[in-house]
Amino acid sequence: MEALIQLGMVSDDPSENQDLGGARTHGAGSHITVQKDYFVEKDGEKFAGTHLLVDLWGARNLTDPEHIDSALREAALAAGATILHSHFHHFEPNGGVSGVVVLAESHISIHTWPERDFAAVDIFMCGACDPYRSLPLLKAAFRPASVRLDEQRRGRLS
Amino acid sequence: MEALIQLGMVSDDPSENQDLGGARTHGAGSHITVQKDYFVEKDGEKFAGTHLLVDLWGARNLTDPEHIDSALREAALAAGATILHSHFHHFEPNGGVSGVVVLAESHISIHTWPERDFAAVDIFMCGACDPYRSLPLLKAAFRPASVRLDEQRRGRLS
Repeated sequence: MEALIQLGMVSDDPSENQDLGGARTHGAGSHITVQKDYFVEKDGEKFAGTHLLVDLWGARNLTDPEHIDSALREAALAAGATILHSHFHHFEPNGGVSGVVVLAESHISIHTWPERDFAAVDIFMCGACDPYRSLPLLKAAFRPASVRLDEQRRGRLS
Repeated sequence: MEALIQLGMVSDDPSENQDLGGARTHGAGSHITVQKDYFVEKDGEKFAGTHLLVDLWGARNLTDPEHIDSALREAALAAGATILHSHFHHFEPNGGVSGVVVLAESHISIHTWPERDFAAVDIFMCGACDPYRSLPLLKAAFRPASVRLDEQRRGRLS
């Protein structure tokens, strides 16, 4: 257990991708109170955020938490997101990594099963971010032979 | 931005729910190398883990990061999971909270939109954990008027 904790990586260095104007912190400096609607509208639908469930098969580089942290950060920035926090754990003996990058616009998470060359990634983003712009970075970092992608619109208003 | 960081809550106190025998750390003390298969088998299917996407509508208590941290921890323990790390951010001016509990068996995340009485929760668990046992705890903590639940089996072998 102690070894596990030592292997945990935490960082709290917000990225400088942009100010937080596009995220839910918007308006903190204003003296006029306006009820801002943080849901997004796309294709005639209104919803809270886009959640991509990305299963990577035949993937590489699944055992190095530093590489994975870096890959997920780059993927977040490519989507236009603001990084608030990240945390990764390295498991023994299989070498798997679990972790998350918490964003001002939701999160990116990953869990890897290196013995199966498999990783499950989630990209959940609200606001003006485009989670699809994260995908090329993930493909470059993990070089999967195949990708199974599912899009869920969370908080869809009927 | 500084205020945001100050509002971030991080904790690294692993729960005492159980030892890590059921999770991916199993076997670290053995001298015999056995290729353990960390995928699960259920209803004739083999897959990496069960991922519940839980949209809570008409929900309460969505602005207090300490309450939410506590609720997600209790939900994780109820499922039989081992907590490794948690992190929550409190957003201004809408009071929304984003956060995650990283588990030895994957994660629980939450993002709240208090202005809509809405929260998006994800419960992703591998191993012997039962994510459905988290649901009553979430309902008790957030008292949603309605719940939209979707189950995804991640890493399903075809």
